[in-house]
Amino acid sequence: MELIIGSIAGLLTSVAALPQVIKVFKEKKVENLSLLMISITTLGVFLWVIYGMMKNETPIIISNGVSTFFNTVLLILYFKYKNQKAN
Amino acid sequence: MELIIGSIAGLLTSVAALPQVIKVFKEKKVENLSLLMISITTLGVFLWVIYGMMKNETPIIISNGVSTFFNTVLLILYFKYKNQKAN
Repeated sequence: MELIIGSIAGLLTSVAALPQVIKVFKEKKVENLSLLMISITTLGVFLWVIYGMMKNETPIIISNGVSTFFNTVLLILYFKYKNQKAN
Repeated sequence: MELIIGSIAGLLTSVAALPQVIKVFKEKKVENLSLLMISITTLGVFLWVIYGMMKNETPIIISNGVSTFFNTVLLILYFKYKNQKAN
């Protein structure tokens, strides 16, 4: 039972940023988004990847690796569309 | 060393939503935020709390409990200011 709960939790938290990436990509607006949240999340999940490597825990590496990817894309899109408004 | 990395990662990911909560609270605008992201994150971290309870892992319970709290507040604020715009 724990394995099921943990797997669902891991799947949800690893793809959570994807809907926001898609929304920003479509609407090209980031005004209401907190850069600090995206940055803290990206750094946090990246550190979880490092932790997973140190402990040799593949599930932690994979779920946080996916999350690091999506949050990094979100970070890039944030700066892309944040500046676009300024031009 | 693992303990340090894991603690920092846990701290960052548990408070990550706080800057977004503050920004929404101040600006009262949620247009660019993805409801799906907030909902998936809230459900995901809540399941991590359940997982932590099943495995009796206090660090998992605490960090994801804090995250569940902040994301739930963000969810409430989302509906509060989303409707406000519609009025």
